[in-house]
Amino acid sequence: MSSISNTIAAIKPLDPALHESAQARLDILTKPQGSLGRLEEFARRIVAITGNTMPEIPRKAVFTFAGDHGVAEEGVSLFPKEVTPQMVLNFLRGGAGINVLARQAGADVVVVDIGVDYDFGGVDGLRHMKVIRGTRNMRKGPAMTREEAEKCVEAGIALANEYADKGYGLFGTGEMGIANTTPSAAIAAVLTGRSVADVTGRGTGIGDEAFNSKIGVIVDAIRINQPDPSDAMDVLSKIGGAEIAGIAGLCLGAAARRVPVVIDGFISTAGALIACEMAPLTAEYLFAAHRSVEIGHGAMLDRMGLRHILNLDLRLGEGTGAAIAMMIIESGIRIYREMATFADAGVSTAE
Amino acid sequence: MSSISNTIAAIKPLDPALHESAQARLDILTKPQGSLGRLEEFARRIVAITGNTMPEIPRKAVFTFAGDHGVAEEGVSLFPKEVTPQMVLNFLRGGAGINVLARQAGADVVVVDIGVDYDFGGVDGLRHMKVIRGTRNMRKGPAMTREEAEKCVEAGIALANEYADKGYGLFGTGEMGIANTTPSAAIAAVLTGRSVADVTGRGTGIGDEAFNSKIGVIVDAIRINQPDPSDAMDVLSKIGGAEIAGIAGLCLGAAARRVPVVIDGFISTAGALIACEMAPLTAEYLFAAHRSVEIGHGAMLDRMGLRHILNLDLRLGEGTGAAIAMMIIESGIRIYREMATFADAGVSTAE
Repeated sequence: MSSISNTIAAIKPLDPALHESAQARLDILTKPQGSLGRLEEFARRIVAITGNTMPEIPRKAVFTFAGDHGVAEEGVSLFPKEVTPQMVLNFLRGGAGINVLARQAGADVVVVDIGVDYDFGGVDGLRHMKVIRGTRNMRKGPAMTREEAEKCVEAGIALANEYADKGYGLFGTGEMGIANTTPSAAIAAVLTGRSVADVTGRGTGIGDEAFNSKIGVIVDAIRINQPDPSDAMDVLSKIGGAEIAGIAGLCLGAAARRVPVVIDGFISTAGALIACEMAPLTAEYLFAAHRSVEIGHGAMLDRMGLRHILNLDLRLGEGTGAAIAMMIIESGIRIYREMATFADAGVSTAE
Repeated sequence: MSSISNTIAAIKPLDPALHESAQARLDILTKPQGSLGRLEEFARRIVAITGNTMPEIPRKAVFTFAGDHGVAEEGVSLFPKEVTPQMVLNFLRGGAGINVLARQAGADVVVVDIGVDYDFGGVDGLRHMKVIRGTRNMRKGPAMTREEAEKCVEAGIALANEYADKGYGLFGTGEMGIANTTPSAAIAAVLTGRSVADVTGRGTGIGDEAFNSKIGVIVDAIRINQPDPSDAMDVLSKIGGAEIAGIAGLCLGAAARRVPVVIDGFISTAGALIACEMAPLTAEYLFAAHRSVEIGHGAMLDRMGLRHILNLDLRLGEGTGAAIAMMIIESGIRIYREMATFADAGVSTAE
């Protein structure tokens, strides 16, 4: 078996008894039962995912996968394609949004070149896992071969295993790739069954003309490539991207290793959805950081049965929403670990 | 003039030029314009509130005001009244939800006895500012005299001034007081004009019978006391509480000193609303941490023109939601301070 099929086979359903034992502890802490709402949900899920009834404050890493997109030549983004490598270098210098927010959250940022159309040489700090120098223009044919897409997924799995081995206990996903809301919207349309217009947004902030053109590009790409919705790898290779595939692999690998993953916004969610279509149990290991401004985001979250944590009108990507949500998930873990019980604190319980 | 009227007179409108200069900086940072959504809003507001065009990461304090309520004898809460002082002692030992979340946020917790029906002696760590030993039962007459309510507001103002003088730059509000969703719902009804049933929730989690009884108690309290909606101090004294008054004072004092305040849930918002009715400009200095499970919360936020930051199904109070929201407001400040500009990072701008 390939590393992908091995990984999928290793993903197990969560044990409901772990949810129950976690709630039993939450219910003896000095607060009305259930009064910490979703913080309690996060604590229960962390216990069930990790199998640890007293989970540690986790070591955290945000994986920011970078890739380019041939479809950028169709004018679907406000920014030129050279911004992808420029932003990768900005990540490595610590000056981007994800660096700022990950520092606050106490998370490492792992910057991964999985498909950038640029030669970084041996630049320090970058994970050199380039599979392709950008996808091909999906309006003219498949973005990737199936083999290329599989290699990108395998790279994500390898990172998940590496960081699980290092003792990291909470992963976040992120990405950088000029034009990558375009393949993400295409994936959303094909896998949720919604119309392209229902799941396509303005990305970096394009005007009306470019927006209408973007919808046309996505419609064309789906018509020309005929991705098979029952075969997620077919969808990923024909209308996806390298960074989306890396995220899919990270989610699969993390689920197999029982490491929870906080998925960021629209593009990250497209990657997570690919993973969930390959292995539906993956969704049990995912947290949806936020609800993006991109209109197709909610449809993908619904398809996976995930409820977003934050709604901050974000549309930057990189993993920025994931970094913030990590802090809130950690709030749930801290509540679970650190609060006094009614008995210890000498507080009377409900009558 | 009293300290209250002096404080109100010192509250000035924000300067729109500060919002604009903050946005101008945000727009040269390496991200699509506006793509960090509400984080950008938080940064702009912090600049405008503080008047500092490069605001520091603020020292933070959550003020948890504790008070008892005579109306508890009407059976409106799931918990007995002695839980108020028991929880105060839990706060002082660091075992409550607010302690856990404030530690994570890097905020101090200032526990204030403003109206608990218990003699704490000289216990260390507690701010001894007791004005009353609990309110009187508002179903039988005014909860407080006007003078008592004013003293509680003045205590909040004094704390705001003290902590502004000490260099704290971000306040959070919190409270503890068995039965205090009852006066808060009464305030919500009177000041928003909604029906009692529209703004009354289940507090700590009471059943149907107690819930219906709670609505009746609030209806009675309003009918018997006839609070004047155009006179917030009248409303506060007749159907409010000491901790609610302290929060109102803290908001007024903070606004006068240009310190932003993160208001927590339903009870804190009742206090903030009292402040805004006394001095409408106060709202410009407030952040609404979250949308509580309590159904009357949204109506009060709407009345103040505030949009909540988080929606985590919280209903604990103490300042717990405020502590979490402080982290996210700080995210906005960090973005503003720490991100690289397009020029510094050598990243191409939008075409």
